[in-house]
Amino acid sequence: MAVQSLPFRTLIIINRNSGVPVFYQVARAIMGLIRSSKLQPGHQLPSSRQMASILSLNRTTVVASYDELVAEGWLKVKPRKGIFVSDRLPIIKPRPFQANGYSGTSIPEAPTIKHERPFELLINDGFPDQRIAPLNAVMDRYRNLAGKAYLHSPLLTGDWAGSPTLRAELASFLAATRALRIGPENIMVTQGAQMAIFIVASIILKPGSSVIVADLNYALADRLFEQLGARLLKIKVDEHGVDVDAIECICRSGKPDLLYIIPHHHHPTTVTLSVERRLRLLDIIRKYQLPVIEDDYDYDFHYAHSPILPLASAEHEGYVTYIGSISKILAPSFRLGYLVAGESLIRQAAKLKQVIAIRGDVLIEESVGYLFQTGEMQKHIRNSVKLYQKRRDAFCEELRQTISGIGEFLAPQGGMAVWATFDRDYSITLLSERMAAKGIFINEGSRYPYHPDVNGLRLGFASLNDAEMATFFKSWNEVK
Amino acid sequence: MAVQSLPFRTLIIINRNSGVPVFYQVARAIMGLIRSSKLQPGHQLPSSRQMASILSLNRTTVVASYDELVAEGWLKVKPRKGIFVSDRLPIIKPRPFQANGYSGTSIPEAPTIKHERPFELLINDGFPDQRIAPLNAVMDRYRNLAGKAYLHSPLLTGDWAGSPTLRAELASFLAATRALRIGPENIMVTQGAQMAIFIVASIILKPGSSVIVADLNYALADRLFEQLGARLLKIKVDEHGVDVDAIECICRSGKPDLLYIIPHHHHPTTVTLSVERRLRLLDIIRKYQLPVIEDDYDYDFHYAHSPILPLASAEHEGYVTYIGSISKILAPSFRLGYLVAGESLIRQAAKLKQVIAIRGDVLIEESVGYLFQTGEMQKHIRNSVKLYQKRRDAFCEELRQTISGIGEFLAPQGGMAVWATFDRDYSITLLSERMAAKGIFINEGSRYPYHPDVNGLRLGFASLNDAEMATFFKSWNEVK
Repeated sequence: MAVQSLPFRTLIIINRNSGVPVFYQVARAIMGLIRSSKLQPGHQLPSSRQMASILSLNRTTVVASYDELVAEGWLKVKPRKGIFVSDRLPIIKPRPFQANGYSGTSIPEAPTIKHERPFELLINDGFPDQRIAPLNAVMDRYRNLAGKAYLHSPLLTGDWAGSPTLRAELASFLAATRALRIGPENIMVTQGAQMAIFIVASIILKPGSSVIVADLNYALADRLFEQLGARLLKIKVDEHGVDVDAIECICRSGKPDLLYIIPHHHHPTTVTLSVERRLRLLDIIRKYQLPVIEDDYDYDFHYAHSPILPLASAEHEGYVTYIGSISKILAPSFRLGYLVAGESLIRQAAKLKQVIAIRGDVLIEESVGYLFQTGEMQKHIRNSVKLYQKRRDAFCEELRQTISGIGEFLAPQGGMAVWATFDRDYSITLLSERMAAKGIFINEGSRYPYHPDVNGLRLGFASLNDAEMATFFKSWNEVK
Repeated sequence: MAVQSLPFRTLIIINRNSGVPVFYQVARAIMGLIRSSKLQPGHQLPSSRQMASILSLNRTTVVASYDELVAEGWLKVKPRKGIFVSDRLPIIKPRPFQANGYSGTSIPEAPTIKHERPFELLINDGFPDQRIAPLNAVMDRYRNLAGKAYLHSPLLTGDWAGSPTLRAELASFLAATRALRIGPENIMVTQGAQMAIFIVASIILKPGSSVIVADLNYALADRLFEQLGARLLKIKVDEHGVDVDAIECICRSGKPDLLYIIPHHHHPTTVTLSVERRLRLLDIIRKYQLPVIEDDYDYDFHYAHSPILPLASAEHEGYVTYIGSISKILAPSFRLGYLVAGESLIRQAAKLKQVIAIRGDVLIEESVGYLFQTGEMQKHIRNSVKLYQKRRDAFCEELRQTISGIGEFLAPQGGMAVWATFDRDYSITLLSERMAAKGIFINEGSRYPYHPDVNGLRLGFASLNDAEMATFFKSWNEVK
């Protein structure tokens, strides 16, 4: 490519009073010419001597400009030929970072969905139906707050544990629904229940710690504990919940650092811990002073009878930290959860939340708090429970017929999903592929491995209306 | 208190077909009577024999009910007297948790603001003015998306690195404004820039690692590194930015694991790394293969001349991870930031984000992405820069007069705050107290300690309108 004869003198304007070094002004101007394609990859530039003459500058200034552009990858020196616009303009190259502390094996690949074509229907593993949630009311309040000079309120700087309104409302709500006798000082708001688990686990665990978990268990909790360097001690779970004898056995033979448990609607199996086991577990917690994370993500959705109270509502001598989800009440896109604990742990957790994320969206938190205040959230929960119970009944009826002879399930007493297990020779992977061809996404067993020996599938029913449910079962029956 | 003569037979209804154990139904019913205050603390209950007779139940059933209620703290046995409603109903007690791994000294107390009375004016340390931000447009788009059956889109399950729209738009935006040649695969969206720093630091650092930081430095970054068990290697910062010679000296004598740097508008001092030092630093990064977190939280706000390009835009051979903030463009309540890195690091980071928080609010992310698409964000940035430049000029003019003789500052070339330092005998604590008495909050030096030897204050001007600015300086002059 021939030497450029661009009118550099008019294209590169130097301002000697700007305070910016002249060589840097020249470099920026040339970069601008490249980015606007006036100079293109492969084009040759005037030599530094020629350019200095064109611009009436000292040659060393132009050399400094060229040097910077070469250093940044915009220009390239070809020995004995001259200086050219680079063929490969600056890009970020793949990192040579080593993943210190997080080995590839300890973090299994996250499940990803191939997007060959958009799915028309997506069967989640237990989401609420956000179409019935009072999102407009949340947004109205949000607009109302955002219109005020909230910047001048202490909201944004003072309260690392979350919005004061939401914390106060949650304290009353949890007292009324779970008999938790707590104040706002016992609550921290998080960006989803997951963050609450992460924060508490980060405080309790260190590399080499041990955590008792159910087998099967909520997969992201297992990954989180492994991420923090902890060892998983797996105990069985049957139709009455986790094996409490096994917990005592572990406590007797060593000092586990944490028990993670989902007593209500265990994930993925949806079983509820029986009253007898629950009472024995409370004894064990007190006797062995065992710290517990009680993940009670869908307590609010119970159909068969009034829910069994959380461990945290009983006398646990302070060993139980309680975690709940507002995302499960409203919509999964709202990242809102909470943590209930003693004041000192809440203070510790708030400090950790601050270094992880400073704070959540306080206006969203305040708005949701306001909906608890007006009773709209409580009304929404009552309506959801009625609707989801109907959907559960309809879904279970259809499912019974669809998987008759190939699998089985227990109708869940609460929550938003059914756990179904299949005969060993029924391939969920194949089902997933065939359903995908029909535009329907369902989790594929092997990519979300609950257990190598379990051929199971968690199917969310709460977010499916009649038509969607019909489409789902019709398609399944066609590909079965 | 006398034995209760409540009509227990009509108050405690047993349903033998419900599947719930009878003893448990009785316990729940009694708990309900306590919670509705029909039975009050100190009230005596019928003996188990009497109650069994009243309810026509086997006595062992009633004993089991009472046992559960005693275990949970609702009832109390007084030997030789009988069974009573507990005086201290179940509450969560303060935790005996030990803060494993996070000692009290390594996490200084977060600054908290006393709320004796609401402040009328709050001087932040560099927030945008959300009153001019296109929040209504974000909300409109949000409503629009929430009204759709987005539950059935892959948005919620497929993309752990954040909303596809926002990532694609950020890639173009960063190319246009920062000459970063990247695709969406190089971007992860986070809940604020802080989470981006936390995630990258968690991947790079392990306990015992060392991090080069400026002294002074953004306090939450220092706390975050210490939280992860890293050692801080502090280097000086002057009016040309950090001391690059000191960085090379550290690299020569050992292998530091990370450099954390804010080249533009360093926090808190607002200085910008000079071009010369920037070029030398790039040499050092390449020569010593030094991993870098480049925190460029307010690149978009530059007044003096076009901003100096980030380190990440130059040839850094993949060692620089770039972090930016959308909260600083829109409003601090929006928790949105991003991370720019090679694909492999982004994949690693997305896995870690998943265990920390699963995902952000994808509808907010999508809505903000849409505003980039329509150009509204870019227009908002242009308008903000014009307005903030005027506010900077007005603020600096007033500040010069106000602190004449007691302190000094350099007018910042960009960003949203001024860094002022005061004579040793001028008490910022006292100023803060006196201003608080006038309803104005300003950070109190000792509670947000940048440096024991520096008597400085960071004052955000961008969010103050004319009237607020006038009130602030009037009050300051009155209490000076």
